[in-house]
Amino acid sequence: MGKLSDSEIQKKLPALDGWKYEAGALVHDYTFADFAEAFAFVVRLALLAEKADHHPDIDIRYNKLRVALISHDSGGVTARDVSMAAEIGKLSQH
Amino acid sequence: MGKLSDSEIQKKLPALDGWKYEAGALVHDYTFADFAEAFAFVVRLALLAEKADHHPDIDIRYNKLRVALISHDSGGVTARDVSMAAEIGKLSQH
Amino acid sequence: MGKLSDSEIQKKLPALDGWKYEAGALVHDYTFADFAEAFAFVVRLALLAEKADHHPDIDIRYNKLRVALISHDSGGVTARDVSMAAEIGKLSQH
Amino acid sequence: MGKLSDSEIQKKLPALDGWKYEAGALVHDYTFADFAEAFAFVVRLALLAEKADHHPDIDIRYNKLRVALISHDSGGVTARDVSMAAEIGKLSQH
Repeated sequence: MGKLSDSEIQKKLPALDGWKYEAGALVHDYTFADFAEAFAFVVRLALLAEKADHHPDIDIRYNKLRVALISHDSGGVTARDVSMAAEIGKLSQH
Repeated sequence: MGKLSDSEIQKKLPALDGWKYEAGALVHDYTFADFAEAFAFVVRLALLAEKADHHPDIDIRYNKLRVALISHDSGGVTARDVSMAAEIGKLSQH
Repeated sequence: MGKLSDSEIQKKLPALDGWKYEAGALVHDYTFADFAEAFAFVVRLALLAEKADHHPDIDIRYNKLRVALISHDSGGVTARDVSMAAEIGKLSQH
Repeated sequence: MGKLSDSEIQKKLPALDGWKYEAGALVHDYTFADFAEAFAFVVRLALLAEKADHHPDIDIRYNKLRVALISHDSGGVTARDVSMAAEIGKLSQH
C-alpha cells in the first residue's frame, strides 16, 4: 500500500479526533483513570489489531498510553493506518 | 471467612445492582455490544481478581457474560463475595 | 456451513488431541498452574476468535478452563469448529 | 523505598537473567513468535503488576516487547524493581 505524503496526511488529520502526525507516524496519547482502565483499552486495541492484521505500536505507562500507527513495510503512513486510526477513534468514544 | 445465611444474603442484594442469588452464588449476567467489548470487561474482572486474590467464575458466550461469586473454601457466599460484587458493580457503571 | 453428522465428528476426533464431543459441541478441558496462566491462554483464544470471527464458549474456573466449539447458526458442529479446534490445539502445545 | 546505587544494581544483575541496567531502569527485551504470543505475555505482566501494585513500562512492537522497571516515586531502581524483575523472570522461563 502506498505511503501517503505529508500533505495527504495533514488533510486526513481533522477527521481523526485526537490523532497527530509525529515522527512519521499517526500518534494518539491517552490518559485513563488507572492502569486497569488503560489496560482494558489495550486489549481492545489488541483484538482490533489481530482482526485487521495491522498492529499499532503501544507504549504503556501505568494509566497513560501512546498508540502509534505506521506501515513499516511501506516506510510511512498509509491509508491502512488512517483507517485503523478511525476504528480506534470509535472505541475511545465509549 | 464465614458463609452468610440465605437471609443475610437477601438483605445485601438490594445494594448490589444487577446481582441475584442463584444456585448458592452471587450471579450477574451482562450483555455487551460485541465480543471485544465483553472481553475488555473480562480483563477488568481478571485484574480485579488477581489484585484481591479472589476469582469469580466467568462464562463467556460471545457478547454475553455470566459472572458468579462464591467462596468455595467456605462452601457459600461470604462477605468477601459481597464486597467483590460491589467492586465489580463500580466497573460496570462506566 | 453444513452441520457435521455425529459419525463425521467421531472420525475427526482422533486428530484433535484432547477434544471430545459432548452435548453437541467440541469440548476441551484445560488445567493450568494458576489463574494467571489460565487467563493468558484465554487471551490467546480471544485473539484467535476475533481473527477468525468465530468465538468459542469459554468457562473460567480459577485455573481450569472449559472451551466449547459449536456453530450456533448451523445448530451443531461444522468444519469451522473442527478447524478452530485444531488451531487451539497448536496453541496449547507451547 | 530507597533508590539503589549504580553499584548495588550492578551486583544484582547477574541473578536477573536477561535484564540490563539502562537509562536508569531495569530493562528486558523480549522477542516472541508473533503478536499473539507477545500479548499473552503482556497480560501476564499486567496481572502481576496489579497484584503487586507496581507497574512496569511496557512497549509493544508487534512480536517484540521492551519491559522497563523503575520506581518513579523514588527516582530510580529500588529493591521492589529487583524483586519484580525476578518475578517476571520466572514467567518467561515457561
